[in-house]
Amino acid sequence: MAISRVLIANRGEIAVRVIRACQELGIETVAVVSEADRESLAATLADRTIAIGPAPPSESYLRVPTIVTAAVATGADAIHPGYGFLAENPELADACREAGVTLVGPTAEHMRLMGDKLTARRLARDAGVPVLAGSEKIATASEAAEIADRVGLPVMMKASAGGGGRGMKIVRERDHLADAFTAASAEARSAFGDSTLYVERYISNARHIEVQVVGDSHGNVVHLGDRDCSVQRRHQKVIEEAPAFRVPEEVRASMRDSAVLLAGNIGYVGAGTVEFIYDEDAKQYFFLEMNTRIQVEHPISEMITGIDLIQEQFRVADGLELSFAQNEVVFRGHAIECRVTAEIPEQDFRPNAGEIDVWRPPAGPNIRVDTHCFEGYVVPIYYDSLLAKLIVYAPDRARAITRMVSALQRFQVQGIETSIPFLHYVMGSDQFGVGAVNTGLVEELLPNFIAPERATLAS
Amino acid sequence: MAISRVLIANRGEIAVRVIRACQELGIETVAVVSEADRESLAATLADRTIAIGPAPPSESYLRVPTIVTAAVATGADAIHPGYGFLAENPELADACREAGVTLVGPTAEHMRLMGDKLTARRLARDAGVPVLAGSEKIATASEAAEIADRVGLPVMMKASAGGGGRGMKIVRERDHLADAFTAASAEARSAFGDSTLYVERYISNARHIEVQVVGDSHGNVVHLGDRDCSVQRRHQKVIEEAPAFRVPEEVRASMRDSAVLLAGNIGYVGAGTVEFIYDEDAKQYFFLEMNTRIQVEHPISEMITGIDLIQEQFRVADGLELSFAQNEVVFRGHAIECRVTAEIPEQDFRPNAGEIDVWRPPAGPNIRVDTHCFEGYVVPIYYDSLLAKLIVYAPDRARAITRMVSALQRFQVQGIETSIPFLHYVMGSDQFGVGAVNTGLVEELLPNFIAPERATLAS
Repeated sequence: MAISRVLIANRGEIAVRVIRACQELGIETVAVVSEADRESLAATLADRTIAIGPAPPSESYLRVPTIVTAAVATGADAIHPGYGFLAENPELADACREAGVTLVGPTAEHMRLMGDKLTARRLARDAGVPVLAGSEKIATASEAAEIADRVGLPVMMKASAGGGGRGMKIVRERDHLADAFTAASAEARSAFGDSTLYVERYISNARHIEVQVVGDSHGNVVHLGDRDCSVQRRHQKVIEEAPAFRVPEEVRASMRDSAVLLAGNIGYVGAGTVEFIYDEDAKQYFFLEMNTRIQVEHPISEMITGIDLIQEQFRVADGLELSFAQNEVVFRGHAIECRVTAEIPEQDFRPNAGEIDVWRPPAGPNIRVDTHCFEGYVVPIYYDSLLAKLIVYAPDRARAITRMVSALQRFQVQGIETSIPFLHYVMGSDQFGVGAVNTGLVEELLPNFIAPERATLAS
Repeated sequence: MAISRVLIANRGEIAVRVIRACQELGIETVAVVSEADRESLAATLADRTIAIGPAPPSESYLRVPTIVTAAVATGADAIHPGYGFLAENPELADACREAGVTLVGPTAEHMRLMGDKLTARRLARDAGVPVLAGSEKIATASEAAEIADRVGLPVMMKASAGGGGRGMKIVRERDHLADAFTAASAEARSAFGDSTLYVERYISNARHIEVQVVGDSHGNVVHLGDRDCSVQRRHQKVIEEAPAFRVPEEVRASMRDSAVLLAGNIGYVGAGTVEFIYDEDAKQYFFLEMNTRIQVEHPISEMITGIDLIQEQFRVADGLELSFAQNEVVFRGHAIECRVTAEIPEQDFRPNAGEIDVWRPPAGPNIRVDTHCFEGYVVPIYYDSLLAKLIVYAPDRARAITRMVSALQRFQVQGIETSIPFLHYVMGSDQFGVGAVNTGLVEELLPNFIAPERATLAS
């Protein structure tokens, strides 16, 4: 491999994950660390570290010039941005190209195409992939009302530059359209510097199903199957599983074909995810968006295929072919991921921080824990509340659930409050057990969740 | 499952492994502990512990009446003996039956049939499974000489009651037959209380290939593929891999069929391993023995099949059917196990003991570490020197080796000396790389191994 030293331009568990992949590939690693992360696990594991500034992400981890300068200064010939905003920022791709540094990720052009949700929607529609009834760009609230009249309420108002749930408003009553337009527009401008909105039909309690794809510069685009990521709170995924459960095989096949077609049409290189909304009643799916980066939930696809996605990212960034062809992907069993966060679900998912006094994740066959935490680690207040991804594999879904329930029970954390009790509750619920998962499940279950006595209530 | 509480009648990593399986199955666990193991990881993880006597295994772990009494006293309805001598002792099976306790293992009858190597050899031959040219029981050194003249030197003299390399003598010169007979006979009497010997043709530098089988009481016997366990030192396995590499597919298929046939013929219930000698030049295999227990190296079969063998042991012991049929076993990828021991290979594998000051096993996707060690653990002098089983999975053998090399490099241990540097050397050798493994490999490589500076030299 031509890449010999990589700058890990992220933090937390994904930085650790990428470092481990590099160790196996024989690539040297440089971890970037903010002032809050000097003692992080990534800093310990990397071959060297470079300080990039104050704790707030906007002053360090998300600052493109700082990141590229750090790569050049440390002699790194590549940058892996992990997931998150930096990973989908075309300015990073542009800056890498200018500096002669390989970005382990897609081209700036592909980021721009898919980052603009309206463009992505058009690409999907032109490729014959089902999209939700809705609009092109809307300029006024009354245009939004016209669309709503045409496609029927409820509708979703979305920022074209959007992502992560920001600039998104569900409108269930016609009277609320004007206010929603004003609010979404302001939110989009503030979050993305672009107030462009569009309106789509909204399917309540739909399922969120996505297809993992990966492409190389030799014209190969393959999929690694589907994932169900319906269990969300405020558009943030909480529990994911692979493969998608309780979806007719022909629908799944069609979704996979759609994803490969869409990525293939643009000559996509790298790991990406094509997200769909699945209407379980109508057994129909609709294109939602394509994420041009590795996803948090990539391990469940790794568990059911045995393929190391991060290593494939490095291969294709290096100009090599994927290490496997589509017909060499052997799918087996079922995997579930729970995102263990430093949050108190019963208090509106309020985050907390502080020192982890006891940290004993479960271990054993078919259990994988991706984490940057350890005993004595102080969870900073500045970042995402993800502490660990607890991933289990089993021959089938029922046994994967049993394994996850047991693993959550054995996961001992003291010093900070976590979402583990709630994850355990969801995993043991009848609804999850029968696969009745949809984007409304967390809201449905939360009121009946009897929270354990919380030791600390300070945030 | 009818089994609700199990006595774990073993120690070390296998006790931990069984406890974890029980936690997932919802079975309560009772760990037996000798005086040396009161602070063991198994003792910490089990629901309760029971002290069973002094440290030497013969005074605690291997004592059948003590074990069965411990089960009855703690209300355990089952015993899992792990691997080792107790697991293949038919007296344990008899005593369990008398006490009304379920043994997670085969019947006493099956243990006796296969424990007597001459009987096992006869069963194999009668089933049409190839056996090495050789003898029935021999009574005198001159009978041994007759056999040797017939099958040709070298020959192996073996104790019929044998196992673990004891009572086995390779004879390369006719003049040495008499001395070998006397020595093997005495060794067999002292180790097994039975001096019965037999003689077989010996294949130098053969490969050791085995097939994992598991049967239930409903007449199902399936295999979970083969393993190559050729890398040994003094008949003790050092490195194992699955599937067996560089063996013609038709030979592998025939070995698997032989194993299933042999186990099926006796109505075998439980996990077992049928071991073969494979003559790579002649492309012929010969039955060696059948082990009527779970093996140390079972994880590599679990890695390539996704099946939890310990959980299947509990199922079939409970009278349930296996959770899968033969055609549901999906083989994928390649797995390697390295046995990390508290031994100094370059000093004739001299064991050492003491406190583990630093214990940082590698972690990450596709890496599994089965261990009972932790920082601060004091390795007792009384037991097997196994500290951990380091297991990796990859899509193919070459990448499994790369992953293992990297994992061994990252495995940090201080306070005691381990076999890690030598394992790393073997794993990186050209011979292992091309799959030129046989029972002579360790002896071949050891003289060229440049040992690291050892911090402690005390045993």
